[in-house]
Amino acid sequence: MKNNLRTRLYEIIFGTDTPAGKLFDVVLIYTILLSVCALMFDSVLESDAGLAPYLNYIEWFFTVVFTLEYAARIYCSPNRWAYIKSYFGIIDLLSILPTYLTLVFSGASYLLIIRLLRVLRIFRVFKLVAYLQEANLLIRAIFQSRRKILVFFFVVLIFATVFGSMMYLLEGPANGFTSIPRSIYWTIVTITTVGYGDITPQTPLGQVIASLAMLTGYSIIAVPTGIFTAELANEMRLEREMIKCANCGRRGHERAAKFCSHCGSHLNIHHD
Amino acid sequence: MKNNLRTRLYEIIFGTDTPAGKLFDVVLIYTILLSVCALMFDSVLESDAGLAPYLNYIEWFFTVVFTLEYAARIYCSPNRWAYIKSYFGIIDLLSILPTYLTLVFSGASYLLIIRLLRVLRIFRVFKLVAYLQEANLLIRAIFQSRRKILVFFFVVLIFATVFGSMMYLLEGPANGFTSIPRSIYWTIVTITTVGYGDITPQTPLGQVIASLAMLTGYSIIAVPTGIFTAELANEMRLEREMIKCANCGRRGHERAAKFCSHCGSHLNIHHD
Amino acid sequence: MKNNLRTRLYEIIFGTDTPAGKLFDVVLIYTILLSVCALMFDSVLESDAGLAPYLNYIEWFFTVVFTLEYAARIYCSPNRWAYIKSYFGIIDLLSILPTYLTLVFSGASYLLIIRLLRVLRIFRVFKLVAYLQEANLLIRAIFQSRRKILVFFFVVLIFATVFGSMMYLLEGPANGFTSIPRSIYWTIVTITTVGYGDITPQTPLGQVIASLAMLTGYSIIAVPTGIFTAELANEMRLEREMIKCANCGRRGHERAAKFCSHCGSHLNIHHD
Amino acid sequence: MKNNLRTRLYEIIFGTDTPAGKLFDVVLIYTILLSVCALMFDSVLESDAGLAPYLNYIEWFFTVVFTLEYAARIYCSPNRWAYIKSYFGIIDLLSILPTYLTLVFSGASYLLIIRLLRVLRIFRVFKLVAYLQEANLLIRAIFQSRRKILVFFFVVLIFATVFGSMMYLLEGPANGFTSIPRSIYWTIVTITTVGYGDITPQTPLGQVIASLAMLTGYSIIAVPTGIFTAELANEMRLEREMIKCANCGRRGHERAAKFCSHCGSHLNIHHD
Repeated sequence: MKNNLRTRLYEIIFGTDTPAGKLFDVVLIYTILLSVCALMFDSVLESDAGLAPYLNYIEWFFTVVFTLEYAARIYCSPNRWAYIKSYFGIIDLLSILPTYLTLVFSGASYLLIIRLLRVLRIFRVFKLVAYLQEANLLIRAIFQSRRKILVFFFVVLIFATVFGSMMYLLEGPANGFTSIPRSIYWTIVTITTVGYGDITPQTPLGQVIASLAMLTGYSIIAVPTGIFTAELANEMRLEREMIKCANCGRRGHERAAKFCSHCGSHLNIHHD
Repeated sequence: MKNNLRTRLYEIIFGTDTPAGKLFDVVLIYTILLSVCALMFDSVLESDAGLAPYLNYIEWFFTVVFTLEYAARIYCSPNRWAYIKSYFGIIDLLSILPTYLTLVFSGASYLLIIRLLRVLRIFRVFKLVAYLQEANLLIRAIFQSRRKILVFFFVVLIFATVFGSMMYLLEGPANGFTSIPRSIYWTIVTITTVGYGDITPQTPLGQVIASLAMLTGYSIIAVPTGIFTAELANEMRLEREMIKCANCGRRGHERAAKFCSHCGSHLNIHHD
Repeated sequence: MKNNLRTRLYEIIFGTDTPAGKLFDVVLIYTILLSVCALMFDSVLESDAGLAPYLNYIEWFFTVVFTLEYAARIYCSPNRWAYIKSYFGIIDLLSILPTYLTLVFSGASYLLIIRLLRVLRIFRVFKLVAYLQEANLLIRAIFQSRRKILVFFFVVLIFATVFGSMMYLLEGPANGFTSIPRSIYWTIVTITTVGYGDITPQTPLGQVIASLAMLTGYSIIAVPTGIFTAELANEMRLEREMIKCANCGRRGHERAAKFCSHCGSHLNIHHD
Repeated sequence: MKNNLRTRLYEIIFGTDTPAGKLFDVVLIYTILLSVCALMFDSVLESDAGLAPYLNYIEWFFTVVFTLEYAARIYCSPNRWAYIKSYFGIIDLLSILPTYLTLVFSGASYLLIIRLLRVLRIFRVFKLVAYLQEANLLIRAIFQSRRKILVFFFVVLIFATVFGSMMYLLEGPANGFTSIPRSIYWTIVTITTVGYGDITPQTPLGQVIASLAMLTGYSIIAVPTGIFTAELANEMRLEREMIKCANCGRRGHERAAKFCSHCGSHLNIHHD
């Protein structure tokens, strides 16, 4: 009888196949989004003393809700220890702990920092993403291009180091380039075309080198785009070729196709 | 007789097939562009008291013109209520109403705000876009990629929330990150590589996190580009394949092709 | 005899097939680049009175050289009036005229402005570009996508007008959005992800709208890229298919291929 | 016997096939990265007098290590002079020389500049990159598109010159456009969408021209991306077509494929 309840709870909390399981996920995601919104309002209204008690109530409300969810998850897990040690198990614990600690310690300013760990819960929303077929195609293309993107990042960092050191020499602390790490920060700001303007080259030679860095960044933005586009086009082609007509055996039909474009028979799409 | 006039008016105002209908559309679009230009001059010269009466005359001129157009549209619509409730029906009303309200109320400063609703009329210009075959191809490609782009936006917003909360902790109100929403605003400014520089990280750790956010943004700019390019290439291929030679039945001709590249017969292009 | 000289001069100055013709073009391009460099130094050293006479000598040197070239071009043109009225004919005249006018008028400050017309001569350098096969491919791809890019520009301008008007309302003159045209300028700075930071939204709602404008701009940067990439890929495929093996008749060889990949015979590349 | 040692050393230092050779490369790369980190800390802590002796010890440590490596490389090279004159031979020498020169000269401030040459050593890290198959594909695609990218750079520079001169005229020294080179620097900052905001147009006409420059830059960012994407897609297709089934002879298999998709026999991948 009790086991039955655990199995039922497990299906609702961890599963997504039953209507109750789907509903639980949707409610959970809205609760997380609401708690993140509460955190935002918290940071906006912090200085307003009159609202402090209400913000406190809201904080405790979400803490109690997430504590109940955490307890339920531990209770119904077939392998409890595995859940507690898992990525989401740790996040679930970290997001409720800080509020309880405020009861013991009173150094509220430090705890506020830990309280923000709750934002990490927002990653649970990614679960929703996996429902969508489009996301899978994108994730596969990103996964295929991960090594190329890493190689690219590596090269950008080397360039940033060399350009940054050069600018540190040419401009020097007087013009804001106070150290090599700070110069590298400036180079990344420039190469990625963000361009805050908090540090800018002042000497003519520095401006020439900066222009070169900009044009380099402007051109190599093409590299990750090119990698990703080529991989995505490839994935889309593969997906098309996976659709095979059961009658004449031809492949290459569009994703949205309902009839074989060669023999006209209805396509019972089966991926193989 | 009267019905005849209504049908004729309907063809001119709503249709685009007759020469008069096309002319009406072109004149209307120029009038809208002119009225938008007038609004712009209005905002530039607002402080110049000497010009106020002239600007007033211009405003009433456009209001009367658009009122006549609105009346004519209601008059000749086969289904009047449907037009009034439609997207363009509401815009047409909203764009003339404010000027009349100034006769009743004198709180001009507040009405100026509503007057700007007239800018929404500029969306009528999109009707012109639909004439162009190129636009249709683009719209189809955007339509095909809409779900992928939405998934991407979703992921960017989650990243912005996490990065923004981190920066709020690391930099704090002293360095301009006065609240989480403001930090998220900064993150979006950074990830999209806009980089105003009104808020910039000052601490070394903040600059490291900011650099990571920039490189992330610089790489994921590839994602919408990749999605759109792959879809557009797909649409262009489909368009090519839709052109079929009537003589030998082969497909895959270029859009501009006049003769079949396989049998040399003239291509009577028919899409199927 | 004299006609012979004219024909010979014509081949050298206007032609590019003879060695002398090529040499003339190269020398001319270097002279133009040098004269542009002189203009730049001029603008840098303007305040330095000691250098003024030397800069004057240099200016007259280039003016005399370009006057001789202009005279020679008129002299040897088969159709003189056509050259004088042509785009380059007018530029050639405009680039020498200002220096002569300084002899007559002494309002030097105004003439300095016209003197800069000489920069337009730099467009002659594009002639060099046409030598390169790569440039032709690029130009063809740009030419193919011109209408799509125009449609895109149109849409961006409409969006900029609507976003700009909204920001003018929300932020107002107090926060730097002093007029609608200036707000549209800000919107273009934001949508193109340039982000100077000379005007930035200060109100929370303004920042939300600005974030939307940024994300829109960040996504639609995909559109011209997608258009151009798809067209370029198309052009490269067409170029490949233009290469046909004379022995077995197959197409689709790589641009750098020397032997047919199907029958192994040497490829005498002939485009058809 | 001695020759045996040289051959063994050569295999370790220059080779990458033996386990010892790979280990040497990895240790060397970490040493280089550490020495670059030391340089960075140096630039950060320069002002802190108490740390000066420790930083001095670290500098001498790396100098001795790189001196030993340099000596070993010369010792075991089959062709010593060729190594000394090679790109990496010169960098290896330049990166150790400055520290020794501080013993002879005491003008430390000038030597600090040369000391930064050590950063160039970081290019040795690229050797690691060549291990990765992904890098080769990227390098081949970049190599294929180098001429097109150069043509593009050329055109960007011409545009920057024309736009820069125009802005120099329109805005003038009063608004920060103090000379043509500085205006060209501004144009590059704008066209590449970096947008520092240290120089911004103030006049209405200047803002219109600036908007044009931004939209131009925003569109032509498509050009290098398009070039690179098209070339990369081409390289990926070629790589696919290089994989041929030994049984049925068909090509076009995916890189990760293990079995022929046509006859089902195991693919012994052999590129030809």
